[in-house]
Amino acid sequence: MAKPPKNAISPTREEDYPEWYQQVVKAGDLAENSPVRGCMVIKPWGYQIWENMQRTLDGMFKATGHENAYFPLFIPMSYLEKEAAHVEGFAKECAVVTHHRLEPDGEGGLQPAPSAKLEEPLIVRPTSETIIGEMYAKWVQSYRDLPILINQWANVVRWELRTRMFLRTTEFLWQEGHTAHATEEEAVEETMKILDLYADFAENHMAMPVIKGTKTEGERFPGAVETYSIEAMMQDRKALQAGTSHFLGQNFSRVQQIKFQDQNGEEVFAWTTSWGVSTRLVGGLIMTHSDDDGLVLPPRLAPNQVVILPIYRSDEERATVLGFCDALKRDLSAQTYGDVPVRVAIDDRDLRGGEKTWQHIKRGVPIRAEVGPRDVAAGSAFVGRRDQSPKEKSGVPRDELVATIGQTLAEIQDGMLARAVELRESNSCTIDTLDDFRSYFTPQKADKPEIHGGFARCHYVEDPAVEEQLKKLKVTIRCLPLDENDEPGECIFTGRRAEHRAVFAKSY
Amino acid sequence: MAKPPKNAISPTREEDYPEWYQQVVKAGDLAENSPVRGCMVIKPWGYQIWENMQRTLDGMFKATGHENAYFPLFIPMSYLEKEAAHVEGFAKECAVVTHHRLEPDGEGGLQPAPSAKLEEPLIVRPTSETIIGEMYAKWVQSYRDLPILINQWANVVRWELRTRMFLRTTEFLWQEGHTAHATEEEAVEETMKILDLYADFAENHMAMPVIKGTKTEGERFPGAVETYSIEAMMQDRKALQAGTSHFLGQNFSRVQQIKFQDQNGEEVFAWTTSWGVSTRLVGGLIMTHSDDDGLVLPPRLAPNQVVILPIYRSDEERATVLGFCDALKRDLSAQTYGDVPVRVAIDDRDLRGGEKTWQHIKRGVPIRAEVGPRDVAAGSAFVGRRDQSPKEKSGVPRDELVATIGQTLAEIQDGMLARAVELRESNSCTIDTLDDFRSYFTPQKADKPEIHGGFARCHYVEDPAVEEQLKKLKVTIRCLPLDENDEPGECIFTGRRAEHRAVFAKSY
Repeated sequence: MAKPPKNAISPTREEDYPEWYQQVVKAGDLAENSPVRGCMVIKPWGYQIWENMQRTLDGMFKATGHENAYFPLFIPMSYLEKEAAHVEGFAKECAVVTHHRLEPDGEGGLQPAPSAKLEEPLIVRPTSETIIGEMYAKWVQSYRDLPILINQWANVVRWELRTRMFLRTTEFLWQEGHTAHATEEEAVEETMKILDLYADFAENHMAMPVIKGTKTEGERFPGAVETYSIEAMMQDRKALQAGTSHFLGQNFSRVQQIKFQDQNGEEVFAWTTSWGVSTRLVGGLIMTHSDDDGLVLPPRLAPNQVVILPIYRSDEERATVLGFCDALKRDLSAQTYGDVPVRVAIDDRDLRGGEKTWQHIKRGVPIRAEVGPRDVAAGSAFVGRRDQSPKEKSGVPRDELVATIGQTLAEIQDGMLARAVELRESNSCTIDTLDDFRSYFTPQKADKPEIHGGFARCHYVEDPAVEEQLKKLKVTIRCLPLDENDEPGECIFTGRRAEHRAVFAKSY
Repeated sequence: MAKPPKNAISPTREEDYPEWYQQVVKAGDLAENSPVRGCMVIKPWGYQIWENMQRTLDGMFKATGHENAYFPLFIPMSYLEKEAAHVEGFAKECAVVTHHRLEPDGEGGLQPAPSAKLEEPLIVRPTSETIIGEMYAKWVQSYRDLPILINQWANVVRWELRTRMFLRTTEFLWQEGHTAHATEEEAVEETMKILDLYADFAENHMAMPVIKGTKTEGERFPGAVETYSIEAMMQDRKALQAGTSHFLGQNFSRVQQIKFQDQNGEEVFAWTTSWGVSTRLVGGLIMTHSDDDGLVLPPRLAPNQVVILPIYRSDEERATVLGFCDALKRDLSAQTYGDVPVRVAIDDRDLRGGEKTWQHIKRGVPIRAEVGPRDVAAGSAFVGRRDQSPKEKSGVPRDELVATIGQTLAEIQDGMLARAVELRESNSCTIDTLDDFRSYFTPQKADKPEIHGGFARCHYVEDPAVEEQLKKLKVTIRCLPLDENDEPGECIFTGRRAEHRAVFAKSY
């Protein structure tokens, strides 16, 4: 068996965090860059994680009364001309379709056919408020037609100059909820319900603790009245905005003429919301939990929660060992964790044992159970947990392994959340002076620009000038947290009286 | 209660089949045209049918060893220049992205920014062989890397001039499988396995009988060695190609350089396949089963298999009736059909009873159970089946309804398949002369061009000239059926000796 390197991932987080991230994605077989600028290929293991996220979220959306539907990929350019703020935010960097046919260019190649130029260019959707609103305007006539609670699973395109797999790509996969309501109260309630749902998913499925809060005006969704987000801390102490829920007021319904007769026969505009999470969550998952040996998956989202690794030399051993493994798989699969059967795979590929084991470590499988002839004889398996050191393996009687599997997975899931909370708490503080603030966000080592303080909670009065000033420090205001319960104080930038503290951090 | 019209859908199938189809789609709340040319909006009820199709097919793909992944929406134009036949087939009518930014046009509107013109245009994928092949070329080095068995659920765009909801739209949703194998035998086996899987799904889930066969050269997928399809007969006796499975030989792997070292150390090209079904299946489902009262759904794919309709006048009645309905729903949901729990909904919206009942008829819900105070007193429900006349309702003791629900759903599903088989068989025949052939495909009434003979099986020797001639008759060769076991005979067009009969039909 090949001696494993000290760590499976090189460089380590400490050595070069951004490069470590790329290497984890690669070693975990999650995704790779495609030949199309800024677009990635999501490989089967990475896609299965996304499928598990989808399935869970989809169930949560449906349980709260939402239905799925599908709207066109293309948006007529004129739709983006209607909502000024929205244009400003989204009309800029996007994929523009101008022709509907190719023809030979006379030199053996192809070219867009001049005769097939579109009268009006089409935009590949960067988000679908405008096209969906156009349909809602038709569907909504009376208060009886409300609420409309629709979600869409789709791909969207935002032309990005600097991309990073999962975190920021030109094309990405997401869900976008779009709802319309008869009253402001209902729409606000929906916005908050989804924010809570996202936080629940992040914490209880991804094991990624988040701060819920409102965005400042500068960070608000273009056209929204209020944007709420969930913010998570990655292991380099930078913040990741992991999901947003927007209260759009009547801004969009006015532009799109989504109006209805209320119970008094008055014609009024609907109140709308929109909300989304994307494949970016996979990036957040990776950066929250992975270590210098690669991906670490929370059991609830792991495609396989247990991998059984048979080890044998002869055909005779093979038969015995595989028989034992099949029975073990059957019994483990009959157990449940989180109300669903435990997901178990047997890896009997013809690969050297060490190589195979390390592949599963790098892919983040929560539990590995190695089974050789001696284990069969002893009625046990040699078990390793991904949340522990690769060396920390121990023999476990197979019946005990089966009986405790749900509990062990829960222990891993809970431990991962606790560890992530601990990381965040030990890298968060309250700051009351600008000097302290500057020093907190100044890199401690010149060659490690990524490593800095973390999250700072400071008294702050919203001010675009301050936000500009922060850009130079490469610090952003993440949110005005909803759970904030500090006393009022002095804004550290302007000295004005601030009712609340905001959360500041470097960010993705 | 408003007296229902004689039929819920106008016109009837007999009166105007194409318009009947549009009205069924509308009345069933399945989809509607969007403001974007050729693109439709799939509404929640229609999308749920697609989700059920997806879930079933996805399970079948996974059970046969396939994994999902995701590849870019965009394909560089140069990729389409590589495979001559493929270009011919797909490079023509497609959405071409030429710019990546919009800017103000100086007149209050927007325009594609000239400074943001792409060096190489991007095509919105019409199908993904080229971009996926590019990745496979990187992933495949040795025979150990094969087979690759990947499927993708995605949207694709083919610029269509004449569109019809679900059947032919500019953007549509589909799955595309792309596999690579070390040997020709394995690739052929995969192609046939998927063809069988599609036929199984069509017949046993959609209740839509299909003929499996090979396409003639003129109808083959551009670049394929052999294209297999499943062909179904719609109620206007026209054929619908419902799914295709392509054996691509080494044609694509040669162009894309998907090569590997075999077990002898020789470098050889991989053998590839591709296969797909799309939202067109929803169109096929509608046209196979629906009647003049609207959609009829096979229970296996129905979003709700049973809808319970509470009827009451006073608050007191309301409490009693809803209590009974809740318990009925709970007990029905505890039953299974096809290994999954029966899907039951209660519709207690504040709508008149007749309107509500007809809504569910038009949406094709297999079983309706009306419950009023008298039914509660009698411990029964007033049950109507969608595969029977709307008038044919009868009181059924609730315990009997619960105990027999799985059996009743199975009866409906089986009956729908039997009815569709019967329609096809009674509108199919063997034809041995050109005169009979012409007369078979000549509309019986000048004002009903849709109504004609059906499927004709005739001896045929492949000949592009004949295919041209058929175009004038608006008849196409659907396939050379695999189940064909007739004697050899004379080609009805050329008199040459034909080994087999082909299936001819008008088609979508």
